[in-house]
Amino acid sequence: MKAELFSVGTELLLGHITDTNAPYLAQQLSILGIDLYYISQVGDNLGRLTESLRRARQRSDLIVITGGLGPTEDDLTREAISALLDEQMVVQPELERDLRQFFASRGYEMPERNVKQATLIASARAIPNPIGTAPGWYVERDGRIIVAMPGVPVEMKRMWENEVAPRLRERQGSGIIFSRALKIIGMGESAVEEKVAALTSSTNPTIATYAKQDGIHLRVTAKAPEEQTAERLVAEMEAKVRAIVGTFIYGVDDETLQDSIGSLFVAQGLSIAVMESVTGGLLASTITDAAGSSAYFKGGVVAYTRETKIANGVDPTLIEAHGTVSREVAQAMATAIRQRLSADVGMATTGVAGPAEIEGKPAGTVHIAIDNRGRCYAQTASIASVRAEVKRRAVISALNLVRRSLLGAL
Amino acid sequence: MKAELFSVGTELLLGHITDTNAPYLAQQLSILGIDLYYISQVGDNLGRLTESLRRARQRSDLIVITGGLGPTEDDLTREAISALLDEQMVVQPELERDLRQFFASRGYEMPERNVKQATLIASARAIPNPIGTAPGWYVERDGRIIVAMPGVPVEMKRMWENEVAPRLRERQGSGIIFSRALKIIGMGESAVEEKVAALTSSTNPTIATYAKQDGIHLRVTAKAPEEQTAERLVAEMEAKVRAIVGTFIYGVDDETLQDSIGSLFVAQGLSIAVMESVTGGLLASTITDAAGSSAYFKGGVVAYTRETKIANGVDPTLIEAHGTVSREVAQAMATAIRQRLSADVGMATTGVAGPAEIEGKPAGTVHIAIDNRGRCYAQTASIASVRAEVKRRAVISALNLVRRSLLGAL
Repeated sequence: MKAELFSVGTELLLGHITDTNAPYLAQQLSILGIDLYYISQVGDNLGRLTESLRRARQRSDLIVITGGLGPTEDDLTREAISALLDEQMVVQPELERDLRQFFASRGYEMPERNVKQATLIASARAIPNPIGTAPGWYVERDGRIIVAMPGVPVEMKRMWENEVAPRLRERQGSGIIFSRALKIIGMGESAVEEKVAALTSSTNPTIATYAKQDGIHLRVTAKAPEEQTAERLVAEMEAKVRAIVGTFIYGVDDETLQDSIGSLFVAQGLSIAVMESVTGGLLASTITDAAGSSAYFKGGVVAYTRETKIANGVDPTLIEAHGTVSREVAQAMATAIRQRLSADVGMATTGVAGPAEIEGKPAGTVHIAIDNRGRCYAQTASIASVRAEVKRRAVISALNLVRRSLLGAL
Repeated sequence: MKAELFSVGTELLLGHITDTNAPYLAQQLSILGIDLYYISQVGDNLGRLTESLRRARQRSDLIVITGGLGPTEDDLTREAISALLDEQMVVQPELERDLRQFFASRGYEMPERNVKQATLIASARAIPNPIGTAPGWYVERDGRIIVAMPGVPVEMKRMWENEVAPRLRERQGSGIIFSRALKIIGMGESAVEEKVAALTSSTNPTIATYAKQDGIHLRVTAKAPEEQTAERLVAEMEAKVRAIVGTFIYGVDDETLQDSIGSLFVAQGLSIAVMESVTGGLLASTITDAAGSSAYFKGGVVAYTRETKIANGVDPTLIEAHGTVSREVAQAMATAIRQRLSADVGMATTGVAGPAEIEGKPAGTVHIAIDNRGRCYAQTASIASVRAEVKRRAVISALNLVRRSLLGAL
């Protein structure tokens, strides 16, 4: 089955709200094994909405619409479907009675304009909406389906789960989709694709890569009549991917880099402390984003000034010789904080967040160092971006460095 | 000018990501006075993408596309525009050189497939992207414009603001819209609306409120034939708003809470140091997000454990008496860090980020304290949310506390 989604509302076209209904329904359709080829946001305009639906009806078996079912003149989804199918909207006495009761139960009298929420066309059945005034429409004609639901997310989701999804699942017959994201750090998107090129021709499961803020996500997706089979297909493909880029995979699905490092610290019974300059607290904050981090995070120092670095144990002659923005000082910071907080691992960052340069070193220069029980390692990067992004990427590099160190991969 | 937006990527059709580029660009187009009639999300499919662009070109003067400019086989935006206009993609030696340098500066060799990011068609000019590998395309033919930008939001926004918006503003000519957001902290959205109710009937300028992560944004928008007139209309309305909620306004447009505090520290010649427990480094990180913060930020300590708090000058008997999660300990932390780092202002946070409780205190309990040259103030909050949100809101409360202290409003 081919599907198409519409979100209706001029507020979407003004950017006043973000459409969260479409990604929710996209996920839901994918789980049902229904192919979704187009999503559109259309304004409250009868001509454009009807025209868009007409095109969709030519190329899709299922049209799912959210929004435009309210009582005001701007709400035109029913009118558009009615125009598209050339069927008259007729008030349904039963629906009207329910609607008046809905208002009465809240102590209001129903405004007369709400009566249009009690209409149907001949091909439509009403979809109950016990938590709002707008029933949905389930329209079936010529073997094609149109579903119209309210735009309010809580009403829409309830209607989808209880009423629409079960009907579609029945129609669709068996067949489900299972998917898993393998999260990769330390390789670019094209490098990942090159490495797994031999696997990309597979059609079930499929694999696809996405560049994200926290690395590359390699998504494995399988279709099968039963969940177990789909999961097995994904697991088999995952094993092949791991055989190629395994050490670069830090997590699966919702697992973050800080979560995965947290698991390593807990498993190895080690602790960490940090001294940060260029990242200004973001490294500590990211580590402590992981629930349970108090078990292994000993604390940190944001040593933004030369004086604070020295007060925390960095040798001033080292700063004289190399400057605060140097590999040598980063290394000294890592060792100093490890010793001061009696941690197993010390991490440090120093650099230039920008926009101005420091000590003649350009914005984006970053030095990261680690001292893992006396085994030291430092790394230098040049991050051409805005201040917040320099900090963010420096933290990701630092977390990846500690991850590799804990895995013995340095 | 009529515009149409496309977000390209199969991950949108699978619901794996929410499209935030479209609402951002929708807002931006509205500010430029450009009418937006359609937004679509299309997958990585050459046929469907080209066909969608063909229809858009028949009904719109401006097509703005995000996504599909990556180096992989799935990235087909350039190919679709090339097919639509029947113009050949040709590698540009200059762009290729820049791209190779971009990789070289990060210590990588450029994978050969990236070379397609250095192509243009005859009608296209490259839009620079100094923070990523994909330049944009600005295509003008037959009086119609196609703009293609990367899907990565930070790259897209930079490109839009610096390159695309100025060109479109120039083309758009007379009749401009000018808008300013007044950012409010310490009041809820409905409270703000009630206070300024008498002004909301104005049609030019209009005022509208939006609840955002960093407070309430009250947006004043004016339309006029000339920029000066629109700006004057906005300034007059701004004065009326400030007369009502002035002390709650911390910034305008892009000015963040940390920027506004930074300006106060610089103006008053004061410095700050922080000791954080529950916020785990996020307070320091947020303060240092402001460019130039090294002038007034003396540094910070992330005192996640009892021991680190004591080592940094908190009296252990106070911890015995009240527990680490207490107003008293927060106050002692603020004073201790102020003295240790010889700062004018000391700030501290302690609390329970969750999900587990601490010392019998529930997740979401937060104590914030300030010591401004000996004048101390503490505040307690209960934030019912997930870990990251507890940290984020605690930081906003802390920054607002220091802001009010510097303004003498405590």
